[in-house]
Amino acid sequence: MTTRIPRDKQNDYSSEIVQARRDFASEKTDVQFEHLNHYNFDPSVTAGNIENFIGVAQVPVGLAGPLLVDGEHAQGEFYVPMATAEGTLVASYNRGMRLLRESGGVKVSVVDDAMQRAPVFMFEDARQARDFGEWVEQNFEAIKDSAESTTRSGKLRNIEQYAAARMRYLRFNFTTGDAAGQNMVGKATYIACEWIKANYPQGIQKYMLSGAMDTDKKHSQLNTLHSRGKRVIAEATIPASLLESIMGVPPEALYKARAVTQVGNFLAGSVNTGAHSANGITALFIATGQDVANVAESSAAITYADIDEDGNYYIAITIPSLIVATYGGGTALATQSECLRMLGCEGSGKVRKLAEIIGGVVLAGELSLSSAVLAGDWVTSHDALGRNR
Amino acid sequence: MTTRIPRDKQNDYSSEIVQARRDFASEKTDVQFEHLNHYNFDPSVTAGNIENFIGVAQVPVGLAGPLLVDGEHAQGEFYVPMATAEGTLVASYNRGMRLLRESGGVKVSVVDDAMQRAPVFMFEDARQARDFGEWVEQNFEAIKDSAESTTRSGKLRNIEQYAAARMRYLRFNFTTGDAAGQNMVGKATYIACEWIKANYPQGIQKYMLSGAMDTDKKHSQLNTLHSRGKRVIAEATIPASLLESIMGVPPEALYKARAVTQVGNFLAGSVNTGAHSANGITALFIATGQDVANVAESSAAITYADIDEDGNYYIAITIPSLIVATYGGGTALATQSECLRMLGCEGSGKVRKLAEIIGGVVLAGELSLSSAVLAGDWVTSHDALGRNR
Amino acid sequence: MTTRIPRDKQNDYSSEIVQARRDFASEKTDVQFEHLNHYNFDPSVTAGNIENFIGVAQVPVGLAGPLLVDGEHAQGEFYVPMATAEGTLVASYNRGMRLLRESGGVKVSVVDDAMQRAPVFMFEDARQARDFGEWVEQNFEAIKDSAESTTRSGKLRNIEQYAAARMRYLRFNFTTGDAAGQNMVGKATYIACEWIKANYPQGIQKYMLSGAMDTDKKHSQLNTLHSRGKRVIAEATIPASLLESIMGVPPEALYKARAVTQVGNFLAGSVNTGAHSANGITALFIATGQDVANVAESSAAITYADIDEDGNYYIAITIPSLIVATYGGGTALATQSECLRMLGCEGSGKVRKLAEIIGGVVLAGELSLSSAVLAGDWVTSHDALGRNR
Amino acid sequence: MTTRIPRDKQNDYSSEIVQARRDFASEKTDVQFEHLNHYNFDPSVTAGNIENFIGVAQVPVGLAGPLLVDGEHAQGEFYVPMATAEGTLVASYNRGMRLLRESGGVKVSVVDDAMQRAPVFMFEDARQARDFGEWVEQNFEAIKDSAESTTRSGKLRNIEQYAAARMRYLRFNFTTGDAAGQNMVGKATYIACEWIKANYPQGIQKYMLSGAMDTDKKHSQLNTLHSRGKRVIAEATIPASLLESIMGVPPEALYKARAVTQVGNFLAGSVNTGAHSANGITALFIATGQDVANVAESSAAITYADIDEDGNYYIAITIPSLIVATYGGGTALATQSECLRMLGCEGSGKVRKLAEIIGGVVLAGELSLSSAVLAGDWVTSHDALGRNR
Repeated sequence: MTTRIPRDKQNDYSSEIVQARRDFASEKTDVQFEHLNHYNFDPSVTAGNIENFIGVAQVPVGLAGPLLVDGEHAQGEFYVPMATAEGTLVASYNRGMRLLRESGGVKVSVVDDAMQRAPVFMFEDARQARDFGEWVEQNFEAIKDSAESTTRSGKLRNIEQYAAARMRYLRFNFTTGDAAGQNMVGKATYIACEWIKANYPQGIQKYMLSGAMDTDKKHSQLNTLHSRGKRVIAEATIPASLLESIMGVPPEALYKARAVTQVGNFLAGSVNTGAHSANGITALFIATGQDVANVAESSAAITYADIDEDGNYYIAITIPSLIVATYGGGTALATQSECLRMLGCEGSGKVRKLAEIIGGVVLAGELSLSSAVLAGDWVTSHDALGRNR
Repeated sequence: MTTRIPRDKQNDYSSEIVQARRDFASEKTDVQFEHLNHYNFDPSVTAGNIENFIGVAQVPVGLAGPLLVDGEHAQGEFYVPMATAEGTLVASYNRGMRLLRESGGVKVSVVDDAMQRAPVFMFEDARQARDFGEWVEQNFEAIKDSAESTTRSGKLRNIEQYAAARMRYLRFNFTTGDAAGQNMVGKATYIACEWIKANYPQGIQKYMLSGAMDTDKKHSQLNTLHSRGKRVIAEATIPASLLESIMGVPPEALYKARAVTQVGNFLAGSVNTGAHSANGITALFIATGQDVANVAESSAAITYADIDEDGNYYIAITIPSLIVATYGGGTALATQSECLRMLGCEGSGKVRKLAEIIGGVVLAGELSLSSAVLAGDWVTSHDALGRNR
Repeated sequence: MTTRIPRDKQNDYSSEIVQARRDFASEKTDVQFEHLNHYNFDPSVTAGNIENFIGVAQVPVGLAGPLLVDGEHAQGEFYVPMATAEGTLVASYNRGMRLLRESGGVKVSVVDDAMQRAPVFMFEDARQARDFGEWVEQNFEAIKDSAESTTRSGKLRNIEQYAAARMRYLRFNFTTGDAAGQNMVGKATYIACEWIKANYPQGIQKYMLSGAMDTDKKHSQLNTLHSRGKRVIAEATIPASLLESIMGVPPEALYKARAVTQVGNFLAGSVNTGAHSANGITALFIATGQDVANVAESSAAITYADIDEDGNYYIAITIPSLIVATYGGGTALATQSECLRMLGCEGSGKVRKLAEIIGGVVLAGELSLSSAVLAGDWVTSHDALGRNR
Repeated sequence: MTTRIPRDKQNDYSSEIVQARRDFASEKTDVQFEHLNHYNFDPSVTAGNIENFIGVAQVPVGLAGPLLVDGEHAQGEFYVPMATAEGTLVASYNRGMRLLRESGGVKVSVVDDAMQRAPVFMFEDARQARDFGEWVEQNFEAIKDSAESTTRSGKLRNIEQYAAARMRYLRFNFTTGDAAGQNMVGKATYIACEWIKANYPQGIQKYMLSGAMDTDKKHSQLNTLHSRGKRVIAEATIPASLLESIMGVPPEALYKARAVTQVGNFLAGSVNTGAHSANGITALFIATGQDVANVAESSAAITYADIDEDGNYYIAITIPSLIVATYGGGTALATQSECLRMLGCEGSGKVRKLAEIIGGVVLAGELSLSSAVLAGDWVTSHDALGRNR
């Protein structure tokens, strides 16, 4: 019996071939599909999203909100679809959203925006590499023209340079419109590299399209410093009275606890000084058709808190590498598109709005969990809500 | 008009209340649901998995394989369901699986296993904190008894200790059976801490259940060192001829390129010296009902390569924090359970088998992408396959 | 003309050969030595400390103090010799010592103690490496006996294990008496490794005495977690009134500034959340004959602050890798021995006393500089005191 | 009896007051100085270098070399004075220098140059902080004029910006001529900040001269990425035959060992992928009057190796934060000036020459130690040479 997964070279997304693959899978794995095959769209819509399509994973979606956002793009109340199978998660975020709402909302800003591809050029010695770096700087405009020739929405913003041994690592930073842009910038950088290869007077013997400094699907300190995707900052000032009445924790306690956890974070070498931003981000990424593997990068965060003169609690979370899209990837798929529309984020020019909403969601979750840890209801709430089978 | 999401205190998972919430969401967001509401299970099965359930995200699943695994728990060929919306991903992993298969398979081992909760105890000075640490060491058995009283499958393996200022950070390491175990260890550690509080002769004034050294939903160097979840190592030796014929790259080229990317990784402060393990892990996490937010931790990786005396390419990837479950979380949900069954990972005692399969998938992806970057077909394959819309 | 530096195989530390080398150096470099040759000890005392001895560097020493220390080994007031050429440094530390003195002194504790050598053993696959790890654990006592056979003062405390690919990285932790112990543990670990090689039933094909996880002369997160040398914690509570009168800064301002600099530290990926511990440590290392290159490791630090109910400022600095000795290395040299005696740290059993004093010095410097930054006299004091030439 | 260290407000560097302090120290510590007081320069030359001067530390200096350097500033053979008390160190570096010399020398290049002060500005929210950042960019020339008004040799190269919460962290990068420049850039940045404060239209409520992103006296990933002081790259190609005859190690063995130690480095979270650059750097820093505490930053390094078509070993070490000066600090002191002259690095315009020589020394030490570890003579050589007392 063949081990080869059935494919149809003419049309690999027809119902027939999809069914053939499911039959093949059933035969091979002894699983009779009753759920995976349950989707209500034409498989052909997944062309460009997946190969060897056999069905769908049904991930539960819960509704949280309203989240009151004071963004530059997102304004007002949002009901947020969160896709997760982790009990308590939606309830906890919901509680944080209530606190934010009653505190006047969460202010969210996108302060930076860049998607990268980072080639490396190899030379005979460090000096040649350094000289090449200077040439790249001087010829930025031509390189930019070359890169941008491949894309309508991608714009080459700048090229960072890093030197080690006889290599020159370049990091191309693009803005990419409503798309996350990884493929777009990969292609644009490739064309730019070929242009460089053709035009560098001293000749290029060797380069690689990635020298590992794009850190795609990987967290890096570089992302924390120079952003990848959107750099989003969510802030709120929570009145002391609300923090106590809703969360059962006085600001002073939260503030002091943070000093202790910051030391713990530092000892651990953690890439996130907050509580659990990955939870909210992942739930929204799945719901809205983002590239969920980017949780690797997007889960980094930096928190900062203060207590103002009136004793209220100022809290901010900075997400340096939030990779989001409202165009491309899985954003046009059936349920994903519905979730984007729920947030008013479908259509052109909506990507920063989505980033702001996610930033607000994240802050809601931070407030809720960090309070729960202190108030002592962390374990009990999971006991009550998170008892799946 | 109310902003309050409808809830039913008696039964919040009935079809009625779920429909009521969807109606509410439609009214609030102007989205008429045609897809989100399309699922084929009774909403009540999601109790314990989600609150405010309104429907499902349908995430495309593609089939890859067979992956030939030489594990201690997984043995033989596996057809792998991967849930993603990123074009090229399944094709690329599939190509890597072919290479591994023709090379005799991927050897995968689970070499460590621990789930953490990390409380912090505060004292008057560093000496008191140090003395407390000694007491904890001496009273490990009693603490273990206390912790394990709350769980059948959780076993307290050891307690790491870290000292800073007047704090003592403890890191409780549990094995957790087939569950990922975050909630289980949270509760067990809480009970243990209360026992400590009641029994420490000098008295405990203050402790927090998390001092941030568990690094839940966050990557940390500590995880890389001491593991979180399963520490999985996938290895293979690829004959030079196969590497060239299937991937178009000689071993020497891959090996030398690695030296260059290792420098890039180090400069960037990347937490993963491989190519893109997050992609495969995320696709399997969504498909099999894992806590997808754990991609934050699980996406760390360490690669190592060598060329043997015959010129063949040895490659290993170490995943220090792979958090997986075959019980609890979303593993019993409709499609998720089907995908677990496809891998033969349903039922008791299967969690290491799942970990091994995922490890093998990850190595397939590493080989495929790192070859593509060198062979120059990286951009072109995305152009061919990743054109959604 | 020969380029070979003169050596005397019989006695390379006689005045004659030293003079011959200086003459040689003068001839080669056109420098007539008037200072380098000015030392008042017999060159033969430097045997074991240096090769090709030609003279001494004269590094200025300033006196600071008294530092009031409440240690477990160091008790009372200490006058501290600091060797540096950086203007303002002694004055700044002196100011901090005054503040500590008037606040009742600095409490210092050594909470951990270990010196490492970290070999790596290579196997055919990850499972063999894991099995080897288990054998090492089971045979700890025999390995310990073997290691300790080479040294009187070195005791093997424990062996940490780290797994990646087909390697097993071991990290031997020794206590080393009054010596820093790098050479002692190198030799002891070597003998232990050879014992392992001879006794491991499955056979050892290959090992290296260092797999880079000792991180000798290098900072690492591992050192921050698991200590290298002494882990020293210095603490003090500074009355608000004194902080204001001596430093011109209220506790609240210092405390709030820290929240901002902690974010800066995190963004930068800094290995030290304090201000400048390296300054005090280096000055004492040079003065007392330590291995000054260990500033690489010893300069890591973790700070933590709190404000107590009376508004006073609690500050602690944790130095996780303070490598100090009162025996061996340069400690017996002429001026170095004098400086050690000034601190009452000569003779047997004094190494923790020295560690405590250095810890106290470091905290003095932290208080002084962090206050200066806020009070605005940072630049002006350097202008007044740091004007060399 | 007073505890106050004697000072003379008129002239604190006269022989009388220095003697008075020594007498005071003798009385307090019961140490009769026979060595510390042995120096042959007028104490007044230390004004600006130290406060409360009482004498000197005599640090042994050994001679190594010649080191054959192919730099852009350093050309030819250098005899290198190394100040250390660690036996074997000079011998080991000397061995490496021989290897480099017989291999045709070490090529060294300075590829970047910057000294930092990094203030932080605080605002009401993230948007105000972002807007401020734009203003800073637009007003760079005026800020530069302001900063440079305070110094002849300091030039403001660029200002990096980093965003988190409602803060804007700026990092001023200066070139500083022959000085290390920490004080120079502190003052220049202070003046620039005051100019900003006076001129920013929206008003500045609060800033701090350091937001901890200068990472002075601290290693940081930021330094590794963006350099601090000189970024120096030392390279050499070692013929296989020489490596074997002098070091007893074939290139292949060194190359393969590196792959294993790179994994160890990564696991440990080490900031230096080389062997022990801190040793050579520290020895030269003490000898030549550098700010030795900068070993904290300067000890970071990145190594890279390759084997060329003829089987020879290419090795490069990149030192991203080498902080050196030939002017200011301790460079004009008695022995220090002599050592600088030995290297031909006294006088104007010599700082890059010094940086190149140090880079070359470091590479010599890397080759020697990494070979010794493999060849198995690491422990035995310390046994032979490092037996002090």
